[in-house]
Amino acid sequence: MTPHPDVTAALLVIGDEILSGRTKDKNIGYIAEYLTGVGIDVREVRVVPDIEAEIVAAILALKERYTYLFTTGGIGPTHDDITADCVAKAMGVSIDHDPRAVAILRERYRPEDLTEARLRMARIPAGAELIENPISKAPGFMIANVIVMAGVPAIMQAMLDNVAGRLKTGARMQSVTIDSGGLPEGIYAEALASVARDHPGVVIGSYPSFTHKGFENKIVLRCKDTSLLAHAEKAVIDALAQLQAAKASR
Amino acid sequence: MTPHPDVTAALLVIGDEILSGRTKDKNIGYIAEYLTGVGIDVREVRVVPDIEAEIVAAILALKERYTYLFTTGGIGPTHDDITADCVAKAMGVSIDHDPRAVAILRERYRPEDLTEARLRMARIPAGAELIENPISKAPGFMIANVIVMAGVPAIMQAMLDNVAGRLKTGARMQSVTIDSGGLPEGIYAEALASVARDHPGVVIGSYPSFTHKGFENKIVLRCKDTSLLAHAEKAVIDALAQLQAAKASR
Repeated sequence: MTPHPDVTAALLVIGDEILSGRTKDKNIGYIAEYLTGVGIDVREVRVVPDIEAEIVAAILALKERYTYLFTTGGIGPTHDDITADCVAKAMGVSIDHDPRAVAILRERYRPEDLTEARLRMARIPAGAELIENPISKAPGFMIANVIVMAGVPAIMQAMLDNVAGRLKTGARMQSVTIDSGGLPEGIYAEALASVARDHPGVVIGSYPSFTHKGFENKIVLRCKDTSLLAHAEKAVIDALAQLQAAKASR
Repeated sequence: MTPHPDVTAALLVIGDEILSGRTKDKNIGYIAEYLTGVGIDVREVRVVPDIEAEIVAAILALKERYTYLFTTGGIGPTHDDITADCVAKAMGVSIDHDPRAVAILRERYRPEDLTEARLRMARIPAGAELIENPISKAPGFMIANVIVMAGVPAIMQAMLDNVAGRLKTGARMQSVTIDSGGLPEGIYAEALASVARDHPGVVIGSYPSFTHKGFENKIVLRCKDTSLLAHAEKAVIDALAQLQAAKASR
Protein backbone atom coordinates (compact mmCIF):
# COMPACT_ATOMS: atom_id res chain seq x y z
CA MET A 1 0.00 0.00 0.00
CA THR A 2 1.43 3.39 -0.98
CA PRO A 3 1.22 5.62 2.04
CA HIS A 4 -0.90 8.71 1.39
CA PRO A 5 -0.18 11.85 3.32
CA ASP A 6 -3.17 12.90 5.40
CA VAL A 7 -5.28 15.62 3.85
CA THR A 8 -6.97 17.61 6.60
CA ALA A 9 -9.63 20.27 6.89
CA ALA A 10 -11.28 22.67 9.26
CA LEU A 11 -14.76 24.10 8.91
CA LEU A 12 -15.66 27.64 9.92
CA VAL A 13 -19.38 28.30 10.30
CA ILE A 14 -20.08 32.03 10.18
CA GLY A 15 -23.32 33.33 11.59
CA ASP A 16 -24.99 34.93 14.59
CA GLU A 17 -28.10 32.88 13.87
CA ILE A 18 -26.33 29.62 14.73
CA LEU A 19 -24.90 31.04 17.99
CA SER A 20 -28.30 32.36 19.06
CA GLY A 21 -29.83 28.95 18.41
CA ARG A 22 -32.42 30.47 16.09
CA THR A 23 -31.13 28.45 13.16
CA LYS A 24 -30.05 24.87 13.83
CA ASP A 25 -26.92 24.15 11.81
CA LYS A 26 -27.29 21.41 9.24
CA ASN A 27 -23.97 21.94 7.48
CA ILE A 28 -21.44 20.63 10.02
CA GLY A 29 -22.65 17.02 9.92
CA TYR A 30 -23.12 17.06 6.15
CA ILE A 31 -19.68 18.48 5.38
CA ALA A 32 -17.96 16.23 7.94
CA GLU A 33 -19.51 13.11 6.43
CA TYR A 34 -18.88 14.26 2.85
CA LEU A 35 -15.22 15.14 3.35
CA THR A 36 -14.52 11.99 5.37
CA GLY A 37 -16.03 10.03 2.48
CA VAL A 38 -13.67 11.53 -0.11
CA GLY A 39 -10.51 11.19 2.00
CA ILE A 40 -10.28 14.58 3.71
CA ASP A 41 -10.11 14.39 7.50
CA VAL A 42 -12.05 17.09 9.33
CA ARG A 43 -10.02 17.98 12.41
CA GLU A 44 -11.77 21.04 13.79
CA VAL A 45 -14.96 23.06 13.51
CA ARG A 46 -15.57 26.58 14.77
CA VAL A 47 -18.70 28.69 14.82
CA VAL A 48 -18.15 32.46 15.06
CA PRO A 49 -20.44 35.50 14.92
CA ASP A 50 -20.78 38.01 12.05
CA ILE A 51 -17.95 40.15 13.44
CA GLU A 52 -15.00 40.95 11.20
CA ALA A 53 -12.26 40.58 13.79
CA GLU A 54 -13.59 37.19 14.90
CA ILE A 55 -13.92 35.86 11.37
CA VAL A 56 -10.49 37.08 10.26
CA ALA A 57 -8.80 35.64 13.37
CA ALA A 58 -10.45 32.26 12.85
CA ILE A 59 -9.50 32.16 9.15
CA LEU A 60 -5.88 32.99 9.96
CA ALA A 61 -5.68 30.32 12.67
CA LEU A 62 -7.35 27.56 10.69
CA LYS A 63 -5.95 28.06 7.18
CA GLU A 64 -2.40 27.67 8.50
CA ARG A 65 -3.13 24.55 10.40
CA TYR A 66 -4.99 22.34 7.97
CA THR A 67 -4.76 21.44 4.28
CA TYR A 68 -8.09 23.15 3.62
CA LEU A 69 -10.40 25.55 5.37
CA PHE A 70 -14.05 25.48 4.38
CA THR A 71 -16.38 28.31 5.39
CA THR A 72 -20.16 28.50 5.29
CA GLY A 73 -22.36 31.57 5.52
CA GLY A 74 -22.14 35.30 5.03
CA ILE A 75 -21.88 35.59 1.24
CA GLY A 76 -25.32 37.04 0.43
CA PRO A 77 -26.26 40.59 -0.58
CA THR A 78 -27.11 42.09 2.83
CA HIS A 79 -24.96 44.26 5.12
CA ASP A 80 -24.33 41.36 7.51
CA ASP A 81 -22.70 39.31 4.72
CA ILE A 82 -19.05 40.11 5.31
CA THR A 83 -17.30 36.79 4.68
CA ALA A 84 -15.72 37.68 1.30
CA ASP A 85 -14.24 40.89 2.71
CA CYS A 86 -12.94 39.03 5.76
CA VAL A 87 -11.30 36.37 3.58
CA ALA A 88 -9.63 39.06 1.44
CA LYS A 89 -8.34 40.71 4.60
CA ALA A 90 -7.05 37.45 6.04
CA MET A 91 -5.34 36.52 2.76
CA GLY A 92 -3.88 40.00 2.32
CA VAL A 93 -5.40 40.54 -1.12
CA SER A 94 -7.72 43.18 -2.58
CA ILE A 95 -11.41 42.60 -3.22
CA ASP A 96 -13.59 44.07 -5.93
CA HIS A 97 -16.41 43.21 -8.31
CA ASP A 98 -15.14 40.21 -10.25
CA PRO A 99 -16.02 40.40 -13.98
CA ARG A 100 -16.75 36.63 -14.13
CA ALA A 101 -19.12 36.87 -11.16
CA VAL A 102 -20.73 40.05 -12.51
CA ALA A 103 -21.36 38.22 -15.82
CA ILE A 104 -23.10 35.40 -13.95
CA LEU A 105 -25.33 37.88 -12.13
CA ARG A 106 -26.10 39.76 -15.35
CA GLU A 107 -27.38 36.53 -16.81
CA ARG A 108 -29.51 35.88 -13.74
CA TYR A 109 -31.03 39.36 -13.26
CA ARG A 110 -32.56 41.90 -15.60
CA PRO A 111 -30.49 45.13 -15.65
CA GLU A 112 -33.07 47.02 -13.55
CA ASP A 113 -33.04 44.24 -10.93
CA LEU A 114 -29.27 44.07 -10.61
CA THR A 115 -29.16 46.28 -7.55
CA GLU A 116 -26.02 47.48 -5.84
CA ALA A 117 -26.77 45.01 -3.09
CA ARG A 118 -26.91 42.11 -5.53
CA LEU A 119 -23.65 43.26 -7.09
CA ARG A 120 -22.10 42.87 -3.63
CA MET A 121 -22.36 39.12 -4.28
CA ALA A 122 -19.87 39.58 -7.15
CA ARG A 123 -17.21 40.94 -4.76
CA ILE A 124 -14.53 38.26 -4.89
CA PRO A 125 -10.99 38.42 -3.45
CA ALA A 126 -8.29 38.87 -6.11
CA GLY A 127 -6.88 35.58 -7.36
CA ALA A 128 -9.83 33.42 -6.32
CA GLU A 129 -11.44 30.76 -8.48
CA LEU A 130 -15.21 30.78 -8.58
CA ILE A 131 -17.40 27.93 -7.35
CA GLU A 132 -20.60 27.53 -9.32
CA ASN A 133 -23.97 27.95 -7.62
CA PRO A 134 -26.61 26.23 -9.74
CA ILE A 135 -29.45 27.33 -7.45
CA SER A 136 -29.28 31.07 -6.92
CA LYS A 137 -26.25 31.73 -9.19
CA ALA A 138 -24.18 34.02 -6.90
CA PRO A 139 -20.94 32.01 -6.76
CA GLY A 140 -18.76 30.78 -3.93
CA PHE A 141 -14.99 30.87 -4.37
CA MET A 142 -11.72 29.19 -3.53
CA ILE A 143 -8.58 31.19 -2.80
CA ALA A 144 -5.38 29.33 -1.94
CA ASN A 145 -6.60 26.66 0.51
CA VAL A 146 -9.76 28.49 1.63
CA ILE A 147 -13.10 27.39 0.20
CA VAL A 148 -15.96 29.84 0.73
CA MET A 149 -19.50 28.51 0.44
CA ALA A 150 -23.05 29.68 1.10
CA GLY A 151 -24.82 28.94 4.38
CA VAL A 152 -28.12 27.79 2.87
CA PRO A 153 -27.74 23.99 2.97
CA ALA A 154 -29.01 23.22 -0.55
CA ILE A 155 -26.64 25.79 -2.06
CA MET A 156 -23.70 24.76 0.12
CA GLN A 157 -24.21 21.13 -0.92
CA ALA A 158 -24.20 22.03 -4.62
CA MET A 159 -21.05 24.13 -4.15
CA LEU A 160 -19.33 21.27 -2.31
CA ASP A 161 -20.11 18.91 -5.20
CA ASN A 162 -18.74 21.52 -7.58
CA VAL A 163 -15.46 22.12 -5.75
CA ALA A 164 -14.72 18.58 -4.53
CA GLY A 165 -13.10 17.51 -7.81
CA ARG A 166 -10.50 20.27 -7.49
CA LEU A 167 -9.25 19.17 -4.08
CA LYS A 168 -6.43 16.81 -3.15
CA THR A 169 -7.64 13.86 -1.21
CA GLY A 170 -5.79 11.35 0.94
CA ALA A 171 -6.47 7.75 1.77
CA ARG A 172 -10.04 7.36 2.91
CA MET A 173 -10.68 6.68 6.55
CA GLN A 174 -12.24 3.24 6.81
CA SER A 175 -14.53 2.45 9.68
CA VAL A 176 -16.31 -0.48 11.25
CA THR A 177 -19.16 -0.19 13.72
CA ILE A 178 -19.81 -2.98 16.20
CA ASP A 179 -22.91 -3.07 18.37
CA SER A 180 -22.05 -4.07 21.93
CA GLY A 181 -24.98 -6.49 21.91
CA GLY A 182 -26.48 -5.08 25.07
CA LEU A 183 -23.24 -5.05 27.05
CA PRO A 184 -22.86 -1.75 28.91
CA GLU A 185 -19.78 0.42 28.44
CA GLY A 186 -18.74 -0.10 32.05
CA ILE A 187 -18.45 -3.83 31.42
CA TYR A 188 -16.45 -3.77 28.17
CA ALA A 189 -14.41 -0.62 28.79
CA GLU A 190 -11.35 -2.42 30.20
CA ALA A 191 -11.22 -4.99 27.39
CA LEU A 192 -11.71 -2.25 24.81
CA ALA A 193 -8.91 -0.15 26.29
CA SER A 194 -6.67 -3.19 26.05
CA VAL A 195 -7.56 -3.71 22.36
CA ALA A 196 -6.89 0.00 21.77
CA ARG A 197 -3.45 -0.28 23.42
CA ASP A 198 -2.62 -3.33 21.26
CA HIS A 199 -3.69 -1.54 18.04
CA PRO A 200 -2.20 1.94 18.25
CA GLY A 201 -2.86 2.64 14.54
CA VAL A 202 -6.59 2.16 14.97
CA VAL A 203 -8.75 4.84 16.60
CA ILE A 204 -11.36 3.14 18.76
CA GLY A 205 -14.33 4.98 20.21
CA SER A 206 -17.34 3.91 22.21
CA TYR A 207 -20.57 5.81 21.62
CA PRO A 208 -23.58 5.39 23.84
CA SER A 209 -26.95 6.63 22.76
CA PHE A 210 -30.01 6.79 24.91
CA THR A 211 -33.36 5.84 23.45
CA HIS A 212 -36.72 4.86 24.93
CA LYS A 213 -35.33 1.31 25.08
CA GLY A 214 -32.41 2.45 27.25
CA PHE A 215 -28.74 2.67 26.30
CA GLU A 216 -27.36 1.32 23.08
CA ASN A 217 -23.62 1.24 22.64
CA LYS A 218 -21.74 1.27 19.38
CA ILE A 219 -18.01 0.67 19.18
CA VAL A 220 -16.46 2.40 16.18
CA LEU A 221 -13.02 1.48 14.84
CA ARG A 222 -11.35 3.81 12.34
CA CYS A 223 -8.15 3.32 10.36
CA LYS A 224 -6.92 4.01 6.83
CA ASP A 225 -5.30 0.58 6.58
CA THR A 226 -7.91 -2.13 6.04
CA SER A 227 -5.79 -4.99 7.34
CA LEU A 228 -4.96 -3.20 10.61
CA LEU A 229 -8.66 -2.39 10.88
CA ALA A 230 -9.73 -6.00 10.32
CA HIS A 231 -7.25 -7.19 12.93
CA ALA A 232 -8.60 -4.79 15.55
CA GLU A 233 -12.19 -5.61 14.58
CA LYS A 234 -11.57 -9.29 15.27
CA ALA A 235 -10.01 -8.44 18.64
CA VAL A 236 -13.06 -6.40 19.66
CA ILE A 237 -15.52 -9.07 18.52
CA ASP A 238 -13.58 -11.75 20.42
CA ALA A 239 -13.45 -9.61 23.55
CA LEU A 240 -17.21 -8.94 23.43
CA ALA A 241 -17.90 -12.67 22.89
CA GLN A 242 -15.83 -13.53 25.97
CA LEU A 243 -17.70 -10.96 28.05
CA GLN A 244 -21.07 -12.26 26.79
CA ALA A 245 -20.02 -15.82 27.70
CA ALA A 246 -18.92 -14.70 31.18
CA LYS A 247 -22.26 -12.92 31.63
CA ALA A 248 -24.19 -16.03 30.54
CA SER A 249 -22.30 -18.24 33.00
CA ARG A 250 -22.81 -15.93 35.99
CA MET B 1 -33.27 50.08 33.05
CA THR B 2 -30.25 48.95 35.09
CA PRO B 3 -27.54 48.02 32.64
CA HIS B 4 -26.51 44.39 32.96
CA PRO B 5 -23.03 43.36 32.05
CA ASP B 6 -23.01 40.82 29.25
CA VAL B 7 -22.63 37.23 30.39
CA THR B 8 -20.96 35.23 27.63
CA ALA B 9 -20.21 31.62 26.89
CA ALA B 10 -18.35 29.32 24.56
CA LEU B 11 -19.22 25.71 23.84
CA LEU B 12 -16.60 23.04 23.26
CA VAL B 13 -17.91 19.86 21.66
CA ILE B 14 -15.47 17.00 22.20
CA GLY B 15 -15.65 13.99 19.95
CA ASP B 16 -14.17 12.28 16.92
CA GLU B 17 -17.65 11.02 16.00
CA ILE B 18 -18.89 14.55 15.29
CA LEU B 19 -15.85 15.38 13.13
CA SER B 20 -16.21 12.17 11.13
CA GLY B 21 -19.86 12.98 10.51
CA ARG B 22 -20.91 9.62 11.94
CA THR B 23 -22.88 11.31 14.71
CA LYS B 24 -24.81 14.45 13.82
CA ASP B 25 -24.49 16.91 16.70
CA LYS B 26 -27.73 17.83 18.39
CA ASN B 27 -26.24 19.73 21.31
CA ILE B 28 -24.97 22.94 19.71
CA GLY B 29 -28.39 24.21 18.68
CA TYR B 30 -30.02 23.12 21.94
CA ILE B 31 -27.41 24.75 24.18
CA ALA B 32 -27.29 27.92 22.07
CA GLU B 33 -31.05 28.37 22.28
CA TYR B 34 -31.16 27.48 26.00
CA LEU B 35 -28.39 29.83 27.06
CA THR B 36 -29.68 32.68 24.90
CA GLY B 37 -33.04 32.18 26.59
CA VAL B 38 -31.62 32.59 30.11
CA GLY B 39 -29.45 35.61 29.30
CA ILE B 40 -26.09 34.03 28.47
CA ASP B 41 -24.74 34.99 25.03
CA VAL B 42 -23.01 32.16 23.17
CA ARG B 43 -20.12 33.76 21.30
CA GLU B 44 -18.17 30.80 19.96
CA VAL B 45 -18.41 27.07 19.41
CA ARG B 46 -15.56 24.67 18.69
CA VAL B 47 -15.57 20.98 17.87
CA VAL B 48 -12.30 19.12 18.57
CA PRO B 49 -11.24 15.47 18.41
CA ASP B 50 -10.56 13.14 21.36
CA ILE B 51 -6.92 14.24 21.55
CA GLU B 52 -5.60 15.59 24.85
CA ALA B 53 -3.47 18.40 23.43
CA GLU B 54 -6.36 19.68 21.29
CA ILE B 55 -8.86 19.58 24.13
CA VAL B 56 -6.53 21.26 26.64
CA ALA B 57 -5.59 24.02 24.17
CA ALA B 58 -9.24 24.73 23.40
CA ILE B 59 -10.20 24.83 27.10
CA LEU B 60 -7.37 27.25 27.86
CA ALA B 61 -8.29 29.54 24.97
CA LEU B 62 -12.02 29.59 25.64
CA LYS B 63 -12.22 29.69 29.44
CA GLU B 64 -10.16 32.89 29.48
CA ARG B 65 -12.21 34.62 26.88
CA TYR B 66 -15.80 34.09 28.01
CA THR B 67 -17.73 34.14 31.28
CA TYR B 68 -18.42 30.41 30.96
CA LEU B 69 -17.13 27.50 28.96
CA PHE B 70 -19.48 24.55 28.48
CA THR B 71 -18.16 21.23 27.24
CA THR B 72 -20.03 18.20 25.96
CA GLY B 73 -18.75 14.67 25.50
CA GLY B 74 -15.96 12.46 26.73
CA ILE B 75 -17.02 11.77 30.32
CA GLY B 76 -18.01 8.09 30.04
CA PRO B 77 -16.16 5.01 31.28
CA THR B 78 -14.18 4.07 28.16
CA HIS B 79 -10.55 4.81 27.28
CA ASP B 80 -11.55 7.53 24.81
CA ASP B 81 -13.31 9.50 27.56
CA ILE B 82 -10.57 11.92 28.53
CA THR B 83 -12.41 15.18 29.13
CA ALA B 84 -12.16 15.20 32.95
CA ASP B 85 -8.40 14.63 32.82
CA CYS B 86 -8.01 17.35 30.18
CA VAL B 87 -10.00 19.83 32.28
CA ALA B 88 -7.86 19.05 35.35
CA LYS B 89 -4.73 19.61 33.28
CA ALA B 90 -6.03 22.88 31.82
CA MET B 91 -7.05 24.15 35.27
CA GLY B 92 -3.78 23.04 36.84
CA VAL B 93 -5.44 20.89 39.52
CA SER B 94 -5.19 17.23 40.47
CA ILE B 95 -7.80 14.65 39.59
CA ASP B 96 -8.84 11.57 41.51
CA HIS B 97 -11.87 9.50 42.46
CA ASP B 98 -14.21 11.94 44.13
CA PRO B 99 -15.91 10.48 47.23
CA ARG B 100 -19.22 12.19 46.39
CA ALA B 101 -19.19 10.79 42.86
CA VAL B 102 -18.11 7.34 44.09
CA ALA B 103 -21.05 7.37 46.51
CA ILE B 104 -23.44 8.13 43.64
CA LEU B 105 -22.05 5.24 41.61
CA ARG B 106 -22.20 2.88 44.62
CA GLU B 107 -25.89 3.61 44.87
CA ARG B 108 -26.35 2.96 41.15
CA TYR B 109 -24.32 -0.25 40.82
CA ARG B 110 -24.05 -3.43 42.84
CA PRO B 111 -20.52 -3.81 44.24
CA GLU B 112 -19.63 -6.57 41.74
CA ASP B 113 -20.78 -4.34 38.85
CA LEU B 114 -18.81 -1.29 39.95
CA THR B 115 -15.91 -2.00 37.61
CA GLU B 116 -12.70 -0.02 37.48
CA ALA B 117 -13.97 1.44 34.20
CA ARG B 118 -17.18 2.67 35.83
CA LEU B 119 -15.17 4.15 38.68
CA ARG B 120 -13.36 6.23 36.04
CA MET B 121 -16.61 8.19 35.83
CA ALA B 122 -16.01 9.30 39.44
CA ARG B 123 -12.70 10.93 38.52
CA ILE B 124 -13.40 14.62 39.14
CA PRO B 125 -10.88 17.50 39.17
CA ALA B 126 -10.10 18.79 42.67
CA GLY B 127 -12.35 21.65 43.71
CA ALA B 128 -15.16 20.92 41.27
CA GLU B 129 -18.85 20.93 42.14
CA LEU B 130 -20.86 17.99 40.83
CA ILE B 131 -23.73 18.31 38.38
CA GLU B 132 -26.44 15.74 38.90
CA ASN B 133 -27.26 13.22 36.17
CA PRO B 134 -30.76 11.86 36.80
CA ILE B 135 -30.55 9.44 33.87
CA SER B 136 -27.40 7.36 34.16
CA LYS B 137 -26.15 8.86 37.46
CA ALA B 138 -22.47 9.46 36.57
CA PRO B 139 -22.23 13.20 37.28
CA GLY B 140 -20.96 16.15 35.29
CA PHE B 141 -19.09 18.89 37.10
CA MET B 142 -18.35 22.58 37.24
CA ILE B 143 -14.91 23.91 38.12
CA ALA B 144 -14.34 27.66 38.17
CA ASN B 145 -16.11 28.82 35.00
CA VAL B 146 -15.94 25.49 33.15
CA ILE B 147 -19.07 23.32 33.00
CA VAL B 148 -18.50 19.73 31.91
CA MET B 149 -21.49 17.78 30.61
CA ALA B 150 -22.21 14.48 28.91
CA GLY B 151 -22.49 14.19 25.14
CA VAL B 152 -25.64 12.07 25.08
CA PRO B 153 -28.32 14.73 24.40
CA ALA B 154 -30.88 13.57 26.99
CA ILE B 155 -28.24 13.53 29.73
CA MET B 156 -26.68 16.83 28.64
CA GLN B 157 -30.12 18.47 28.72
CA ALA B 158 -30.79 17.23 32.25
CA MET B 159 -27.36 18.44 33.39
CA LEU B 160 -27.96 21.85 31.82
CA ASP B 161 -31.25 22.17 33.72
CA ASN B 162 -29.42 21.18 36.88
CA VAL B 163 -26.57 23.66 36.55
CA ALA B 164 -28.43 26.63 35.05
CA GLY B 165 -29.62 27.93 38.42
CA ARG B 166 -26.00 28.28 39.62
CA LEU B 167 -24.94 30.54 36.78
CA LYS B 168 -24.91 34.32 36.56
CA THR B 169 -27.08 35.57 33.77
CA GLY B 170 -27.24 38.92 32.02
CA ALA B 171 -30.06 40.77 30.37
CA ARG B 172 -31.80 38.48 27.94
CA MET B 173 -31.30 39.10 24.27
CA GLN B 174 -34.66 40.05 22.82
CA SER B 175 -35.39 39.32 19.22
CA VAL B 176 -37.97 40.07 16.58
CA THR B 177 -38.34 38.17 13.33
CA ILE B 178 -39.89 39.86 10.32
CA ASP B 179 -40.78 37.95 7.17
CA SER B 180 -39.79 39.89 4.08
CA GLY B 181 -43.19 39.11 2.55
CA GLY B 182 -41.72 37.70 -0.63
CA LEU B 183 -39.26 40.55 -1.20
CA PRO B 184 -35.84 39.16 -2.14
CA GLU B 185 -32.72 40.11 -0.18
CA GLY B 186 -31.25 41.91 -3.17
CA ILE B 187 -34.20 44.31 -3.18
CA TYR B 188 -34.30 45.18 0.53
CA ALA B 189 -30.59 44.94 1.31
CA GLU B 190 -29.85 48.63 0.85
CA ALA B 191 -32.80 49.77 2.96
CA LEU B 192 -31.90 47.23 5.63
CA ALA B 193 -28.27 48.37 5.72
CA SER B 194 -29.52 51.91 6.22
CA VAL B 195 -31.76 50.85 9.13
CA ALA B 196 -28.77 48.97 10.60
CA ARG B 197 -26.59 52.10 10.35
CA ASP B 198 -29.30 54.18 12.06
CA HIS B 199 -29.69 51.65 14.91
CA PRO B 200 -26.15 50.70 15.93
CA GLY B 201 -27.33 49.07 19.18
CA VAL B 202 -29.49 46.58 17.31
CA VAL B 203 -27.95 43.60 15.52
CA ILE B 204 -29.82 43.04 12.27
CA GLY B 205 -29.43 39.91 10.18
CA SER B 206 -31.09 38.65 7.04
CA TYR B 207 -31.56 34.89 6.74
CA PRO B 208 -32.63 33.27 3.52
CA SER B 209 -33.84 29.72 3.48
CA PHE B 210 -34.52 27.68 0.40
CA THR B 211 -37.56 25.41 0.30
CA HIS B 212 -39.52 23.72 -2.44
CA LYS B 213 -41.44 26.97 -2.74
CA GLY B 214 -38.25 28.94 -3.43
CA PHE B 215 -36.50 31.43 -1.16
CA GLU B 216 -38.00 32.72 2.04
CA ASN B 217 -36.26 35.56 3.82
CA LYS B 218 -36.46 36.37 7.49
CA ILE B 219 -35.04 39.54 8.97
CA VAL B 220 -34.02 39.11 12.57
CA LEU B 221 -33.42 42.05 14.91
CA ARG B 222 -31.69 41.43 18.22
CA CYS B 223 -31.13 43.80 21.13
CA LYS B 224 -31.27 43.68 24.93
CA ASP B 225 -33.15 46.96 25.11
CA THR B 226 -36.79 46.53 24.14
CA SER B 227 -37.38 50.16 23.21
CA LEU B 228 -34.38 50.30 20.88
CA LEU B 229 -35.59 47.03 19.41
CA ALA B 230 -39.13 48.33 18.85
CA HIS B 231 -37.76 51.44 17.17
CA ALA B 232 -35.65 49.42 14.74
CA GLU B 233 -38.52 47.01 14.14
CA LYS B 234 -40.77 49.87 13.06
CA ALA B 235 -38.06 51.18 10.73
CA VAL B 236 -37.70 47.75 9.06
CA ILE B 237 -41.45 47.31 8.68
CA ASP B 238 -41.79 50.81 7.19
CA ALA B 239 -38.92 50.17 4.77
CA LEU B 240 -40.42 46.87 3.61
CA ALA B 241 -43.85 48.51 3.15
CA GLN B 242 -42.27 51.23 0.97
CA LEU B 243 -40.54 48.61 -1.15
CA GLN B 244 -43.77 46.61 -1.50
CA ALA B 245 -45.59 49.77 -2.59
CA ALA B 246 -42.88 50.56 -5.13
CA LYS B 247 -43.10 47.02 -6.46
CA ALA B 248 -46.90 47.22 -6.77
CA SER B 249 -46.71 50.50 -8.70
CA ARG B 250 -44.11 49.29 -11.21
